[in-house]
Amino acid sequence: MNTGTPRIEINEVGPRDGLQIEKTFVATDDKVALVDALSDCGFARIEVTSFTSPKAIPALADAQEVMRRIRRRPGVVYTALVPNIRGLERALEVGTDEMNLVMSSSETHNRANLRMTRDQSQAELTAILQAAKGSHVPCNVSLSTVFGCPFDGDVPVGEVLRLATQLVEAGATGITLCDTTGMAYPTQVAALCEAVSRALPGLPITIHLHNTRGMALANAIAAWQTGVTRFDAAAGGLGGCPFAPGASGNVNTEELVHMFECMGVRTGVSLQPLLDIVQGLPQLVQREFSTPLLAAGPRLATHQPPAWLAEKFGPTQTPA
Amino acid sequence: MNTGTPRIEINEVGPRDGLQIEKTFVATDDKVALVDALSDCGFARIEVTSFTSPKAIPALADAQEVMRRIRRRPGVVYTALVPNIRGLERALEVGTDEMNLVMSSSETHNRANLRMTRDQSQAELTAILQAAKGSHVPCNVSLSTVFGCPFDGDVPVGEVLRLATQLVEAGATGITLCDTTGMAYPTQVAALCEAVSRALPGLPITIHLHNTRGMALANAIAAWQTGVTRFDAAAGGLGGCPFAPGASGNVNTEELVHMFECMGVRTGVSLQPLLDIVQGLPQLVQREFSTPLLAAGPRLATHQPPAWLAEKFGPTQTPA
Repeated sequence: MNTGTPRIEINEVGPRDGLQIEKTFVATDDKVALVDALSDCGFARIEVTSFTSPKAIPALADAQEVMRRIRRRPGVVYTALVPNIRGLERALEVGTDEMNLVMSSSETHNRANLRMTRDQSQAELTAILQAAKGSHVPCNVSLSTVFGCPFDGDVPVGEVLRLATQLVEAGATGITLCDTTGMAYPTQVAALCEAVSRALPGLPITIHLHNTRGMALANAIAAWQTGVTRFDAAAGGLGGCPFAPGASGNVNTEELVHMFECMGVRTGVSLQPLLDIVQGLPQLVQREFSTPLLAAGPRLATHQPPAWLAEKFGPTQTPA
Repeated sequence: MNTGTPRIEINEVGPRDGLQIEKTFVATDDKVALVDALSDCGFARIEVTSFTSPKAIPALADAQEVMRRIRRRPGVVYTALVPNIRGLERALEVGTDEMNLVMSSSETHNRANLRMTRDQSQAELTAILQAAKGSHVPCNVSLSTVFGCPFDGDVPVGEVLRLATQLVEAGATGITLCDTTGMAYPTQVAALCEAVSRALPGLPITIHLHNTRGMALANAIAAWQTGVTRFDAAAGGLGGCPFAPGASGNVNTEELVHMFECMGVRTGVSLQPLLDIVQGLPQLVQREFSTPLLAAGPRLATHQPPAWLAEKFGPTQTPA
């Protein structure tokens, strides 16, 4: 099998991309405790919160307090979503390590999600990138819907390349290719990752996957096989998209870590502490949801054979 | 991306591998209607039933009647599980096109599932293969737990190759590599498929995947990239394993079809009629279960933008 790099980096986006659409307001103390627990798992990056208007996203109204109070583990990059100059200022005030700017590659999703045209968003992002230059804080741009828009359908690769190139020219230090509503499929993921790598050699590319149609891990493999080393993921598969009915959340971090570690690819993340966090998520967000890997356990978490087996056959084991 | 063949074959195992563990007895008329509807979807193979003792699997006690009454669509191979000579005779009486024999590659799972040692199972299968020779009906062998056993852990590749080789020498016309409890991961799948292909060149290999830890579609891609063209799958992801708590069912047929068709790989299966069948499954088996692709729809089943969008912006579409 064609393999990628022996080491990948995971950006845990659950505290931001997951909690932002939850109906329950998670208390600030609990958010800080969640990020601190995630810090101890070994993530390369954690997207802590979003400096959007508290009116737009009340779930993350405590962005500054959370970012101020989290324990900064050395080596972990603490990022936050920043939608405008005011958000950038708030994020800088509390020492955010890296900014994540967002716009959609498709026109209708951008209008529905951000209430601006793509041109307006691009101008806004360019202004943020300009304003951030003095701070020397890296600014990544997440391009939504690059593998398909729930309203417009497929997005031309040329549009993705145009936006990525212009945003990098404006100062973006990395691009995240987002499968916002789980429309990506493996050959498409590979082709787009390769096209962006070719157009912008050396640019750090992150892939952001959703598991809406079951393909999240297959798409992660496809991206990894092209050389992508950075993956967004949300513990417990939190998140979703309000504009795509039936859309499930982000790729489960625990499943992504488990798969890559099984393959001998180092993620830096310790699975068991992560599973402990996942176990507490339904209580944190006050709703039930299924977490398959937690139910089944890691692949080599073997079970005791039925009791009647020893009586019938004596001790048993497949010979090595 | 390294790609496999442009056309694959899907073996729909839901009527056997799915229904056998359901608590509700599905009426014979409904089973026949299910298989007939599946026949119209374009599957290469359908595993219709199991000729096990009605005491062992009461859910499939009507095996002969179902196999007699289904409509035989030309081009579809109708298979059945056959555990012993008596089962073979019953299957032959009703014109089963192909037999599927089963044993585990791990000792403890074989004892727990089949109540025999592997040596005993191998002797039984060899006797069935011998007895079937006169009929010229093909006999596939499904080797369970080849990617890991829920009791014994990893199974040595040498054991899988030994059993596969000996069973092929005894007359098996194909081997199915079964990830019985969803322990497989992509590089492992690729390595084992390649090892079996090398050891038994030209042998038809089928891959049987479960989605227990989210990797079913990633594993399907890995197998396909090595040249495997035959895939077991169950509509709606029916099935499971009674010995692995938390284990989910087979890879969802609709997700497998959807992924490969998105990639331009022909499965022969029409997705919409299949989704119609999947929609009826919860009623058929009298329990609720989630079918993500049905909830989300195929990737290009786009949605209407929110109504306020047109008022604010006028008509909108990403330029081609």
